[in-house]
Amino acid sequence: MSPLDSLIKHLAKLPCLGPRSARRMVLHLLKKRDTVMLPLIEAMTRAAREVKTCSACGNLGGSDPCEICRDPGRDRSLICVVEDVADLWALERSHVYRGLYQILGGTLSALEGVRPEDLPVEKLLERVKSNKTKEIILALNATVEGQATAHYVAERLAPVGVAVSKLAHGLPVGGELEYLDDGTLAAAMQARRKAGR
Amino acid sequence: MSPLDSLIKHLAKLPCLGPRSARRMVLHLLKKRDTVMLPLIEAMTRAAREVKTCSACGNLGGSDPCEICRDPGRDRSLICVVEDVADLWALERSHVYRGLYQILGGTLSALEGVRPEDLPVEKLLERVKSNKTKEIILALNATVEGQATAHYVAERLAPVGVAVSKLAHGLPVGGELEYLDDGTLAAAMQARRKAGR
Repeated sequence: MSPLDSLIKHLAKLPCLGPRSARRMVLHLLKKRDTVMLPLIEAMTRAAREVKTCSACGNLGGSDPCEICRDPGRDRSLICVVEDVADLWALERSHVYRGLYQILGGTLSALEGVRPEDLPVEKLLERVKSNKTKEIILALNATVEGQATAHYVAERLAPVGVAVSKLAHGLPVGGELEYLDDGTLAAAMQARRKAGR
Repeated sequence: MSPLDSLIKHLAKLPCLGPRSARRMVLHLLKKRDTVMLPLIEAMTRAAREVKTCSACGNLGGSDPCEICRDPGRDRSLICVVEDVADLWALERSHVYRGLYQILGGTLSALEGVRPEDLPVEKLLERVKSNKTKEIILALNATVEGQATAHYVAERLAPVGVAVSKLAHGLPVGGELEYLDDGTLAAAMQARRKAGR
C-alpha cells in the first residue's frame, strides 16, 4: 500500500474521523510537513513513550502516581469514582472538586461483556481502608449502564461504612424546560428543593 | 507542558478536530498504544518521509512523476485542471476520467492574497505545447473564486488554440428540485438538453 493510502487508512479508523476527514487531514499534514506534521509525530512519539497510567487511581499523566494523587493540596479523604479519564478531565476543567479519583475504566455491560469482577472495586475498597476515606462520590454517567454500575459500587461499599453520594440529577444550568427530556424533568421535579436558597 | 497536553494541543489544531475530539482521540490512542498509536506514528513518519509532490502535475504520491503521470494507460492528450489534490482524488474515485491532471494549488483570491502569478499557468501552457494536449478540462469548484479562476485560465489558454471545456452545472444525480438552490436550478434550466437522450 502506498504511504499515502496507508496513512489515510490508519487515520480513518480513529474516533471522530471518517475516510473524508482523514483525507482532508492527510492533505493538511503533507502541505505543512515541517510546521505541523513533524511536530505532531514528535508529540505523539513522546506521549506514547512517557504517558503512564497511575497505579493508584488509573488516571493518565506524565508520572506514576499521577499529578493529582501526588498533589498535597488535594483532600485525600474524598474519592470521586468516574468511568473514564475523559470524565476526570471534565471534572478537573470545572474546578468544582479537589479530592482524589478512582477511574473504573468502564461500566457494567452485558453487551460489551464487562462483568463486576472487571471493575477495580477491590482496589477501591483497599484505598478506602488505607486512606481513611470519608466520602465516595459516584460521578457516573446518567445512562442505564452508568446507574447500574453506581448501584453495584454503592452496594459493595456499604459494609465498609464510608459515606457514598452521587451526582444530583436535574436541569442543566442554562437548560430550557421545553427542550428537556421527560426523565430529566421527572428527576428535577422529584429532587426539588425549597426556593430561595 | 505535559506530553498529554502537548499532544492534545497539536491534534486540536488539525482540520476536522477541536479540543473535545482531540482529547477523545488521545485517550483512544493511549488505550491502544501498541495496536493503534505506534502503527499510526509509523505510517505518519513514512508518509512524511516518502510522499512526494509530482513535478509534472502537482499530485502527491510515492514517486515523482506520480503514478498517474507515469501510467501508460492514461490519455496524455487530456489535462484536467483542479484546484487541489482532494479534487483529483474525488475525480479518481468516480472513475470517469482517464487523462492527466494539473493541480493549481489554489484559486484566485483577493482575500487570501492569491494572485494570477501564484498559479502554475505558465507550467500548464508549457505542458500543453510539449504534450500536444488536445483538450483542457477545467474542473474547478462552482464558487465565485473557482469560476473566476476558470475564466482566467481559459483566457490565458485561448492564444494556444487548445480546446478548453468546463464541468457542466446542473442537478446533482439523486438531487431533489425542492431542495436545490436557485443558482443551480437556473444553471440546470439554461443548460437543458433534448429529452430522450
